[in-house]
Amino acid sequence: MQTQIPELIPCIVSGGAGTRLWPVSRQAFPKPFIRLADDQSLLQKAFLRAARLPGVKRVMIITNQQAQLRTLDECRAVNAGGLALELLLEPEGRNTAPALAAAAADLLEREPAANPLLLALPADHLIADEAAFAAAVEKAARLAGDGRIVVFGLKPSRAETGFGYIEAGAAIGADGQEVARFVEKPDHAAAEGYLAGGRHLWNSGMFCFSAAALCEELAEHAPDVLAAVRDCLAHSPASQSADHRLRALERERFGRCPDISIDYAVMERTRAAAVVRCELGWSDIGNWDSLAEQFPADADGNRVSGDALLRDSHDCFIQSRGRLIAMLGVDNLAVVDTPDALLVADRGRSQEVRELARRLQDQNHPAWRLHLSSQRPWGHYTVLADSERYKIKRIVVKPGASLSLQMHHHRSEHWIVVSGTAMVTHGQEERLLHTNESTFIPAGETHRLSNPGLIDLVLIEVQSGEYLGEDDIVRFADDYGRSEAAP
Amino acid sequence: MQTQIPELIPCIVSGGAGTRLWPVSRQAFPKPFIRLADDQSLLQKAFLRAARLPGVKRVMIITNQQAQLRTLDECRAVNAGGLALELLLEPEGRNTAPALAAAAADLLEREPAANPLLLALPADHLIADEAAFAAAVEKAARLAGDGRIVVFGLKPSRAETGFGYIEAGAAIGADGQEVARFVEKPDHAAAEGYLAGGRHLWNSGMFCFSAAALCEELAEHAPDVLAAVRDCLAHSPASQSADHRLRALERERFGRCPDISIDYAVMERTRAAAVVRCELGWSDIGNWDSLAEQFPADADGNRVSGDALLRDSHDCFIQSRGRLIAMLGVDNLAVVDTPDALLVADRGRSQEVRELARRLQDQNHPAWRLHLSSQRPWGHYTVLADSERYKIKRIVVKPGASLSLQMHHHRSEHWIVVSGTAMVTHGQEERLLHTNESTFIPAGETHRLSNPGLIDLVLIEVQSGEYLGEDDIVRFADDYGRSEAAP
Repeated sequence: MQTQIPELIPCIVSGGAGTRLWPVSRQAFPKPFIRLADDQSLLQKAFLRAARLPGVKRVMIITNQQAQLRTLDECRAVNAGGLALELLLEPEGRNTAPALAAAAADLLEREPAANPLLLALPADHLIADEAAFAAAVEKAARLAGDGRIVVFGLKPSRAETGFGYIEAGAAIGADGQEVARFVEKPDHAAAEGYLAGGRHLWNSGMFCFSAAALCEELAEHAPDVLAAVRDCLAHSPASQSADHRLRALERERFGRCPDISIDYAVMERTRAAAVVRCELGWSDIGNWDSLAEQFPADADGNRVSGDALLRDSHDCFIQSRGRLIAMLGVDNLAVVDTPDALLVADRGRSQEVRELARRLQDQNHPAWRLHLSSQRPWGHYTVLADSERYKIKRIVVKPGASLSLQMHHHRSEHWIVVSGTAMVTHGQEERLLHTNESTFIPAGETHRLSNPGLIDLVLIEVQSGEYLGEDDIVRFADDYGRSEAAP
Repeated sequence: MQTQIPELIPCIVSGGAGTRLWPVSRQAFPKPFIRLADDQSLLQKAFLRAARLPGVKRVMIITNQQAQLRTLDECRAVNAGGLALELLLEPEGRNTAPALAAAAADLLEREPAANPLLLALPADHLIADEAAFAAAVEKAARLAGDGRIVVFGLKPSRAETGFGYIEAGAAIGADGQEVARFVEKPDHAAAEGYLAGGRHLWNSGMFCFSAAALCEELAEHAPDVLAAVRDCLAHSPASQSADHRLRALERERFGRCPDISIDYAVMERTRAAAVVRCELGWSDIGNWDSLAEQFPADADGNRVSGDALLRDSHDCFIQSRGRLIAMLGVDNLAVVDTPDALLVADRGRSQEVRELARRLQDQNHPAWRLHLSSQRPWGHYTVLADSERYKIKRIVVKPGASLSLQMHHHRSEHWIVVSGTAMVTHGQEERLLHTNESTFIPAGETHRLSNPGLIDLVLIEVQSGEYLGEDDIVRFADDYGRSEAAP
């Protein structure tokens, strides 16, 4: 038993493409970024849930390098308490064992004496009962402080065949139980038995352990994972900014880590496993059916987000942003609308949305890759119209941010400021552009756009010309290291 | 028997809101304008069908005043033979008796000696077998030349309960039969009997008669209709342009015409009625189900127009312009997509789409009134984006056309030419704007936009300001009689 309480560091594991949530989830807009009815994303909810735990001073986030900007933006937008952010950036997803090994090894390397506790939380879960969550975390932290590798086991609420189960064993004091065994996704009969029996719990994918304990268990049961991760970390320098620390895992060495889950690598092999039984009002928002549950149903069982008109329709889920959706004489449909793609699915088959997404991936369909809106280091833009002769974008530039100094061979660009103030560099000249003013950049002219103000700059860009591909850009200077040429 | 063959004038009756075809049909975009798979509208198909009849030199069209511009544009686009166009414009729909009475009286007034034959054709029908149609018209014209009021009776292909029927009587030579009686929409059992019996035909709503014969029958059976129509015509001057004649029916007097169909007013009362039995591959495109039949079905019975991805879905009809529609595990749905409204309906209930449209009408919902695209005398425009601070339109100005000389109090306008050449009047100054160039009109400045060129002028307009309503416009001069103020 130890006397001093170690620091508890929530570590949000923000992965998962969420292809079953297409067309809202895309390759460039994975599941943690999906927004719910209250306009908070799943990632923001996970961050706030972690931030509200007692004693939390910093939050680690493990995510894909591509998602760095949006992840920071989303966390900053809700980080009222000013918690320190520590990002570990994966060049590609390698499953949970390398991710959590990297988090533990990174901490242990920096703070060997402190041996903090890590609370691994998937970014794409919802938890309705935060008090129960805090109580469960407290128990898990005590067990983890004693060297246990703790998994949170959720009391089943239905005979679910899509999750792994944990059979709980003997009690460990008042806080938890030994793990008798891990059980793969069962068939329906077995799931019914588990639900009735009371000894089986859903494997939540949430864990708690000390950095040292995880590394010791990895050293014993998955030494190849630990070695690969340590080798990668040795070639992955960290950088510290005002409000966050970044450590990008070196691509080639991270690619050598075995693709294995923490369950296989450690939990099923270690003698230190413990399970904390809990009831959290938990949901994994795995598909449109579980997401629909987050919206209230009307008298006909319909759940609607957006403008809809229903006639003799029942038990439907409708999500629209901006367009009117009219439904007539239909039951049990999920209708999910986005500006460039629409899904109409039987709600009983929402698991198969993944197969649709795979077919789009095979076609390399734009509606699989990205939305019409894209995040950039300097802000974001949305394509409003795209035609053979012109493309129109709404561009938002953050205060103080600049696009690169650039030139296009084939298109002229027309900028109209609809909110805020722009500083436009035109060849050698610089000038301010105020709200309701516009300017014109002919093809071949070097130009740059900045926001010198204190509020967002919103402008409409109309590109016109014979070729409008995103690859017609020559960058001379860039604040974000993207330039290919010197001026 | 007469010896000289009178002229046959097709008279297209272009009415019908087509609310069962919402969201493609709108108040400002009625059914005759709906385009089919070959990108021809129903009106264009009706025009071409009429134009291809032997001996046709001109085509009359009876339509709503609001539809004048688009009707002319659509007919001109397919009028390769340069037929003369004669438009009778109704200020409001008053059913078929006043419309056809006006057409007959208008012709008789102009050409009393010629007594031409009128062939009344609804604009919203499809006819697959044009040879059979031409043969039936030939028979009808012979009967009409003998003073008969002829209705085309379609051999039933199913036990339809949605149409009126005609019971055919004794033969009139080889061309037609007497009308034994007209039958209201029957119940299903009666319709089955009609289908089996062979004496009953669908009332097609297509008629043929001489102008004088119709006026005589009206004088006898519906003198109030004829009197009201003649009174209206006396106050409705006609005008002749290069390619068309226009006669706008005077609003107040036309409003006094009884709202009655030609069936009630004449056909069910006259002794001159005759029916020509025909089989034309006819469809009235009454709802999405009948429109769907115009598209070929794949092996699963799905009929698709646009970009769609289907998984285990059957007998669906999908119409999309631009967006991807993915369907999963659904059967027998009609999914009709437009930029601002989407319909998802059980195909068996397409008749009830009308009820949805009525509810939108009650709400005065924009998606009931108009599309994001609008026709104007000078061309057309489409709203690409609409936000609190800006509105973006794609504007197409016809060669030689001008918008009004105008001024806005609250918005500035930015114009970017993406195709063609614009002449822009800016206060006192005029200047040419070429492709890929732009200009800026500040709020309060008098301006005008013209297309001096020989091809369409396409430009992107970005409006920005605090108030962007269409009513913020002061017109000083207008080529189309819309100005409210002198400069």
